[in-house]
Amino acid sequence: MSTVVMKFGGTSMGSVERITNVARRVAKWHAAGYKVVVVPSAMSGETNRLLGLAAELAAEPEPRELDMLATTGEQASSALLAMALINLGVPARSFASWQIPIRTDNAYTRARIRSIDDKRLRGELDQGRVAIVAGFQGIDEEGHLTTLGRGGSDTSAVAMAATLGAEECMIFTDVDGVYTTDPRVVPEARRMRVITFEEMLELASLGSKILQNRAVEFAGKYRVPVRVLSSLTDPDMPIEEEKQSGTLITFEEDQKMEAAVVSGIAYSRDEAKFTLRKVPDTPGIAYAILGPIAEANIDVDMILQNLSAEGMTDFSFTVSRKDGPHTQEIIEKVVQPVIGAGEVAYDDKVCKVSIVGIGMRSHAGVASTMFQALSDEGINIQMISTSEIKTSVIIADKYMELAVRALHRAFDLEQENGANAAVLDQ
Amino acid sequence: MSTVVMKFGGTSMGSVERITNVARRVAKWHAAGYKVVVVPSAMSGETNRLLGLAAELAAEPEPRELDMLATTGEQASSALLAMALINLGVPARSFASWQIPIRTDNAYTRARIRSIDDKRLRGELDQGRVAIVAGFQGIDEEGHLTTLGRGGSDTSAVAMAATLGAEECMIFTDVDGVYTTDPRVVPEARRMRVITFEEMLELASLGSKILQNRAVEFAGKYRVPVRVLSSLTDPDMPIEEEKQSGTLITFEEDQKMEAAVVSGIAYSRDEAKFTLRKVPDTPGIAYAILGPIAEANIDVDMILQNLSAEGMTDFSFTVSRKDGPHTQEIIEKVVQPVIGAGEVAYDDKVCKVSIVGIGMRSHAGVASTMFQALSDEGINIQMISTSEIKTSVIIADKYMELAVRALHRAFDLEQENGANAAVLDQ
Repeated sequence: MSTVVMKFGGTSMGSVERITNVARRVAKWHAAGYKVVVVPSAMSGETNRLLGLAAELAAEPEPRELDMLATTGEQASSALLAMALINLGVPARSFASWQIPIRTDNAYTRARIRSIDDKRLRGELDQGRVAIVAGFQGIDEEGHLTTLGRGGSDTSAVAMAATLGAEECMIFTDVDGVYTTDPRVVPEARRMRVITFEEMLELASLGSKILQNRAVEFAGKYRVPVRVLSSLTDPDMPIEEEKQSGTLITFEEDQKMEAAVVSGIAYSRDEAKFTLRKVPDTPGIAYAILGPIAEANIDVDMILQNLSAEGMTDFSFTVSRKDGPHTQEIIEKVVQPVIGAGEVAYDDKVCKVSIVGIGMRSHAGVASTMFQALSDEGINIQMISTSEIKTSVIIADKYMELAVRALHRAFDLEQENGANAAVLDQ
Repeated sequence: MSTVVMKFGGTSMGSVERITNVARRVAKWHAAGYKVVVVPSAMSGETNRLLGLAAELAAEPEPRELDMLATTGEQASSALLAMALINLGVPARSFASWQIPIRTDNAYTRARIRSIDDKRLRGELDQGRVAIVAGFQGIDEEGHLTTLGRGGSDTSAVAMAATLGAEECMIFTDVDGVYTTDPRVVPEARRMRVITFEEMLELASLGSKILQNRAVEFAGKYRVPVRVLSSLTDPDMPIEEEKQSGTLITFEEDQKMEAAVVSGIAYSRDEAKFTLRKVPDTPGIAYAILGPIAEANIDVDMILQNLSAEGMTDFSFTVSRKDGPHTQEIIEKVVQPVIGAGEVAYDDKVCKVSIVGIGMRSHAGVASTMFQALSDEGINIQMISTSEIKTSVIIADKYMELAVRALHRAFDLEQENGANAAVLDQ
């Protein structure tokens, strides 16, 4: 008998009616003979409600106590789902993380899973019960509760699937899969039926909110097949149909042998750009600039250093837009007095647009197609960054939608049988 | 260093502001050098909100899952209180019952505490931390969560105090102590400073909602001094003053050596009376009448059988008013055909008024003072029941307030230095 892990997000668990639908969907897989482990998130809004109370009580709530508080959300939704299943006549039991146990380190509010004991889980499944395990949480060595950070239920589900050698980890959410780009920007955006793990990792790190980055990494490490699919479809839809729905994240690249050059387009408005002009081009200059910023726990994303002219260079980098003002302070107070650069230009009216595709590894000329498409629309490229399967550009904020649409068209992403995308989905 | 256990009810934990007040009160005791264990209830309304969700999901929610659900309320409020304390600079940690652990049987939704491991608790206290322990819950032998039933946090607190040999278990609530009777009925009702355990037990079983009956029994079994006091007073009031506030439930009868004859007056409108006339006065007749009622899980309270005349007797008993109609059906369908009594009179316009006092053990004539006071008001007594420290009467519902006031006056309860009450409080 195959095992499946089904994870349901907060929206999918957001009301009594939706929990009932989740129960019907789970009951269907159970009736078909699958061993089913369910990982529910807290009901939507619940975690924010709890953290809101915490914020009112303390300016900086103790992380250990934040985790004691936040873990109650998933425990409650797990119990509610168990009741709904039992009400449908399906034997089921809910478990908090410590009852499995799911062991983590003790980095409260952002812990990492160390191990999952599968004995109790297998015992429940062998007795024909659906096992519902509260996501997002674990216990550390001393028996204190921990949480895995926002979106951590995805990681819980993938880890559980890895432990149990599940056939698939199904991540039910309020979208019906991974799209070539955001359909709100490009109405022609198309759901991908298959995406490689590497592509998904790039998309996740570029701000696609569908799956937590760490969950994708975890899936990669243990080669867990993960499917992203919608919880808003008919819960009684045939299993064979459901098995073909959503987007499968695969590790079998041969499933995408004739892989599209570009699979998807990601964008992010959460960008702010700094340019330091006339920086003395001496060794250690990058560290002199970025060291103090890193010390302030600010993540620097793209970094670009121009060719030197007359012993001077221009140095640009981007940070998260919310970190812009703080970064500006650091540069003015710490960096400039030391390196004595001439001028600091700050621009938070920029965005990042990226093309992602496993096929870029073996196809030349992809970047130039990108640059030409942008040029044809009169869009000026301010910074470029490339990796093996991704090319990102920084452009003016106001051109973002235009750029995404132009690139979507340039790489034929709207057509499943288009020149580029024909080979994307198998 | 003395240990105190402080329990706060749902109303006391009902808002961010109130939790902050609780934290200030706890901080004061901690600063004074006490080892402090706090047992908070769930924020008021939270348990009902959770159980409401359960009721929507299933007609008869699985008890094990109800407990998984309900225990989250106390875990959340414990974490919030810990944050508030840490925010005041007081080292504190919250614990769920399984982290102590508090072991119970597996009677979900109404479990009984079997043991409390004091090792972790003592360790926390020895390190100078306030230990906050989620009330109302425990784990069974298999590691499933259980709850102790409504008001179970009182029992948790008393059990914790017993385990730790605490100087006192303080039950903070929204009333400022135990009164001679309900102040809404008798404005002159007076707070008792001391009440014996036996008296409290009678008052609790007579419907006083201040303390769960099981908590009082637990206190009695382990001789834990319990104080009922208000959480609505100034949290910064001097400790010496707080130690004198509220009502102390004592096991040291010498604290009440010249004990008042009557300490308090309880009443209950939740009564319905049955009278079976002309019942054949044969052996086994009481069982023939009450057996079928007990089988229907209906609790019979007072029972009265008159003197026999001509081989016939009158048989009266009372049940909870809500059980009245069901009881009536049973008598008409099951009892009457068997015993063939002449007539069944049903009256749900009755109430029970009781006087309670440890001094009744050694004082004669208490009951007759009661009967005289009622007679002076023209109130007819329908049934009488006595125990060692209690006399209860059933009278017409409409006379209830009048009776309570008359008895309060007859036993001088309004005066701390009155003929009767002079000796009540030490």
